[in-house]
Amino acid sequence: MLVNGKSTRTIWAHPTDSSVVQVIDQRRLPHHFEVLDLRTVDDGVVAIRDMAVRGAPLIGATAAWSMFLAVQQGMDLEQASAALLASRPTAVNLRWAVDRMNQMLAAATKTGAAPDEVLALARAEAALICEEDIEISKGMGRHGLPFIEAAHRAHPDRPVNILTHCNAGWLAAVDWGTATAPIYTAHEAGIPVHVWVDETRPRNQGARLTAWELGQHGVPHTVIVDNAGGHLMQRGRVDVCIVGTDRTTRTGDVANKIGTYLKALAAQDNGIPFYVALPSTTIDWTLRDGMEIPIEERSPEEVTHLYGVATGNGAESGIKSGDKNAAAGYFQVTPTGSGAANPAFDVTPAKYVTALITERGSCDASEAGLLSLFPEEA
Amino acid sequence: MLVNGKSTRTIWAHPTDSSVVQVIDQRRLPHHFEVLDLRTVDDGVVAIRDMAVRGAPLIGATAAWSMFLAVQQGMDLEQASAALLASRPTAVNLRWAVDRMNQMLAAATKTGAAPDEVLALARAEAALICEEDIEISKGMGRHGLPFIEAAHRAHPDRPVNILTHCNAGWLAAVDWGTATAPIYTAHEAGIPVHVWVDETRPRNQGARLTAWELGQHGVPHTVIVDNAGGHLMQRGRVDVCIVGTDRTTRTGDVANKIGTYLKALAAQDNGIPFYVALPSTTIDWTLRDGMEIPIEERSPEEVTHLYGVATGNGAESGIKSGDKNAAAGYFQVTPTGSGAANPAFDVTPAKYVTALITERGSCDASEAGLLSLFPEEA
Repeated sequence: MLVNGKSTRTIWAHPTDSSVVQVIDQRRLPHHFEVLDLRTVDDGVVAIRDMAVRGAPLIGATAAWSMFLAVQQGMDLEQASAALLASRPTAVNLRWAVDRMNQMLAAATKTGAAPDEVLALARAEAALICEEDIEISKGMGRHGLPFIEAAHRAHPDRPVNILTHCNAGWLAAVDWGTATAPIYTAHEAGIPVHVWVDETRPRNQGARLTAWELGQHGVPHTVIVDNAGGHLMQRGRVDVCIVGTDRTTRTGDVANKIGTYLKALAAQDNGIPFYVALPSTTIDWTLRDGMEIPIEERSPEEVTHLYGVATGNGAESGIKSGDKNAAAGYFQVTPTGSGAANPAFDVTPAKYVTALITERGSCDASEAGLLSLFPEEA
Repeated sequence: MLVNGKSTRTIWAHPTDSSVVQVIDQRRLPHHFEVLDLRTVDDGVVAIRDMAVRGAPLIGATAAWSMFLAVQQGMDLEQASAALLASRPTAVNLRWAVDRMNQMLAAATKTGAAPDEVLALARAEAALICEEDIEISKGMGRHGLPFIEAAHRAHPDRPVNILTHCNAGWLAAVDWGTATAPIYTAHEAGIPVHVWVDETRPRNQGARLTAWELGQHGVPHTVIVDNAGGHLMQRGRVDVCIVGTDRTTRTGDVANKIGTYLKALAAQDNGIPFYVALPSTTIDWTLRDGMEIPIEERSPEEVTHLYGVATGNGAESGIKSGDKNAAAGYFQVTPTGSGAANPAFDVTPAKYVTALITERGSCDASEAGLLSLFPEEA
């Protein structure tokens, strides 16, 4: 998607220096757009661990490219794999990408490939993982598009109002994103869309990342607090909800960023369709009940502190507009001494999900629905 | 309630200087506890307009004391009233308090009271309005207590977990508060309680004010983002919800801070009682449908900017603990160029409200319920 008018991905091989992989440093968004050079496995580990890159598909892609860097440096591959796997222990795509690279490398070594051939193969495989991810995103875009088209046909005189939560955007993938893929696809197809962006406390991925990527690509959008969505739905100002998911059970229960469940309840209460876009890699075929999904409890400081840019310290009526050169930093919003709890995800039961959108098609949020698209899992 | 171990109200006559009324400057909370001196009507107008004081009951009390200051200064009372009424145009209690003071003053003048007698009467009336407000709060506390006692009987082995939204606390009233009145009453009665405090974006009244007042009074509590409540309810970690309201229809629909509706939906979905505490002055007997309540749209900058204390600018893993002497200020959290919408309230339909708690008793959230307590409105 576009950044400063230029087609950009979240991760790419340096155009002239073959020893460098580059990523957008997402910790600095939206106040600063900075590119981070990865030259070693350690650089990749740190980028994943410190969330310069985040989002399951992008973590996978970064791990794949980090394995390429390991080969390039002649590093022990077991050691490199272990370091990467430890960087975000719960990320499913991380293990998948590391395993895939190792299998490829083992096969290449077995066939007696020369070191520079192995390196070329590693580079090609990491690049392929990225291309495949983009194809998966485009698939979700294609299969989600009809839902936006239907909403547009119902109200052809105005933009389709789409509510999304968190960042299931291209910043979480290599390009196009998951929940945003149908949105970008509709936008490219000339359907007028307007996105309500839940700010998504505590980490504000909506306000920081989704708003930024939509704005850069020219998609009309409005940031709202997480509290506002129910009211907007009551007043007919939301046509469609589309969110991503971190893990989906075979029965269609959806674990996603904390607060997703509340929006699904409001959509249900107001007869608004609630779609979940997911690459099939996030389906946990071993689970039947979403309530069995363990919910990560993150640091209380994500609740008590916020990331922003200082803009003045006057009375509430005296808020000043942002100076983009101002220093970005962390700000405590709670009283010193008040504790905080920080569950990172919640589970939306399948009964509140209108449809699942995958790279193979859309389906009912049910075991039958999912098996109709993925019969090999029956 | 207690502040730094000392029983404190939100507004009081200066103990030695009879020309001064004092209020807590709530704009500086929770990072700084400061007392503001009001010497003129203008001081009162500015305190209300700039939200040094907020919350319907406290706005009323401040207006009453401001009318006392007008008398003391020999100011034209019509002019003083007009200035006060313009300070927060939608605040119902503001008009009520100004009217009451004017009626009293007109009656006193009519009976030929001397200026110093009129001043003494004005002082007594303003003080009486405050005492009456405290009695109303205590009434809600008394009538809400049985619901907390019932939750305690159901799980006597652990604290009662109460979720609240925004600040319907003693900081919004003169003392005790509305939604917090049953909580403080239970706490004083020795029932172990623990309060989940919704931070309540965009203005963070929960994180800033409710957390502060509960902490100062020694009530165990935990701040959560507004997204978290549904998940906590799903996992059995909330026993009771209690919120306040800005306006209630005669049919029991409740307009309250944006996001209240989402919590009511989650409570309903999980079989958790959802109570609304309200002084009867906030019932709009002329309205039958909550959807007719106009919803104030506030400044987008309340969404894009936050109030906090700077604590460092390291990576996300490097959040530092707060320095309470650090400068508090505003911080931009969204990308420059992304717009924001900021509806301030939402409407929770009566069907999602388990009971209304008033100073006269509790009742069903219905016309029949309310009329059983307020038959004079039939």
